[in-house]
Amino acid sequence: MTRPDPAIAYQRDRSPGFVSQRVLSELGRRILAGQYAQHSALPTELQLCAEFGVSRTAMREATKMLAAKGLVVSRKRAGTLVQDSSLWNRLDPDVLSWMSATDPDPEFVRGLIEARLAIEPAAAELAARRASAGDLARIEAGYLAMRAADLSDLAACAEADVAFHVSILNASHNPVFAGLASLIGQALENSFRLTTSVSRNYAETLDAHGDVLEAIRLRKPDQARARMRALIDIASADLVNATAKHRP
Amino acid sequence: MTRPDPAIAYQRDRSPGFVSQRVLSELGRRILAGQYAQHSALPTELQLCAEFGVSRTAMREATKMLAAKGLVVSRKRAGTLVQDSSLWNRLDPDVLSWMSATDPDPEFVRGLIEARLAIEPAAAELAARRASAGDLARIEAGYLAMRAADLSDLAACAEADVAFHVSILNASHNPVFAGLASLIGQALENSFRLTTSVSRNYAETLDAHGDVLEAIRLRKPDQARARMRALIDIASADLVNATAKHRP
Repeated sequence: MTRPDPAIAYQRDRSPGFVSQRVLSELGRRILAGQYAQHSALPTELQLCAEFGVSRTAMREATKMLAAKGLVVSRKRAGTLVQDSSLWNRLDPDVLSWMSATDPDPEFVRGLIEARLAIEPAAAELAARRASAGDLARIEAGYLAMRAADLSDLAACAEADVAFHVSILNASHNPVFAGLASLIGQALENSFRLTTSVSRNYAETLDAHGDVLEAIRLRKPDQARARMRALIDIASADLVNATAKHRP
Repeated sequence: MTRPDPAIAYQRDRSPGFVSQRVLSELGRRILAGQYAQHSALPTELQLCAEFGVSRTAMREATKMLAAKGLVVSRKRAGTLVQDSSLWNRLDPDVLSWMSATDPDPEFVRGLIEARLAIEPAAAELAARRASAGDLARIEAGYLAMRAADLSDLAACAEADVAFHVSILNASHNPVFAGLASLIGQALENSFRLTTSVSRNYAETLDAHGDVLEAIRLRKPDQARARMRALIDIASADLVNATAKHRP
């Protein structure tokens, strides 16, 4: 019954019947929302099994997966404790998608924009050096989907926009940048949820997306970098204003 | 009996007696080394239990944690399959540390350098805007440890160098950059393992590290960015030459 997580949909292949997935997601969301506070213990295994109606085996699997993502740690006698948030693996695709179900943390939203500004222009520059014709076709497909999307259908707009940016990350032929695709995708998803002016920005930057594609196609690394930077600057201006300012 | 993983040591708090940790690490290393090939099944649970001398519960916990990191997926009848490497969460701190135990993949090493060049100058710029005096003290501690380290003690040099760069990522007050600390740490660890000329570079760039610290202290964002970029350029020149060239 859970809504599919967009950040996962393009990234992971999941077994549909995976019994502890629902428990895992719900516990993850509660931890990220602060419902289970840092350094405190989760309810006992028996309590959680009763609440979710699952076996102890399924519950143990779920808590092991939470531990694998740095959210909890098991301690003899003390039970399962929520770790300090600095130890959470916040770049894990699941953790990112759970975060999107909670109220956005302005500091994290600002951090994602800054990370996009550092990473995506560099990826566009590399894509201009290395993209194959197949890579170009995938970037173009994202661009055409953006143009074709109904502006009132935010989900379709977000999906096309994510596809465009992820295909450029992949066209950089840098496995680290490709591995950051779910991070960038989540940042974009967030921007569609956060600003009311997103559809205006989306329409205004359509041509700018095409310009990035053209620079990559013509193997102009510096131009690709500059155009991608300009694009993210425009798209994130409202977000930056809407969230925390730089400290003095 | 396993050697502590440096990438984890500064990042995670682990229960020492964690029973499936040894199994998890060994299976992870085998998958990353290609010993269990992509799209193929792991040995059966019974075979693995016999080999490692652990219970089925411990083995299931280990495979769930591998699944949580995107390395495997459980399929009815087909068993536990190794996922396509594009689905591995290669930015997970554990996955990064397992990768360091295998032969370095030149494409990934090059990718890490490119990622450092995108991320660390941006983080240094933000640190110049936002670093507290406490942040400066931590960066300085890393710098002084670098100066104090015996050049013949590569582990001590690597630890101090990692501490310096991680403290700057944290001083950016950007949670995404801070979350990339284990990635950057792993890239540095790799560079110490890969180049024979690392101690020469290390000695040559000591003053340059101090210059980055000074620019951050004096709140000069552009200078901090440029100096960090120059530093990584020098430190990675040998690595870039030692690995794959850019494609035409």
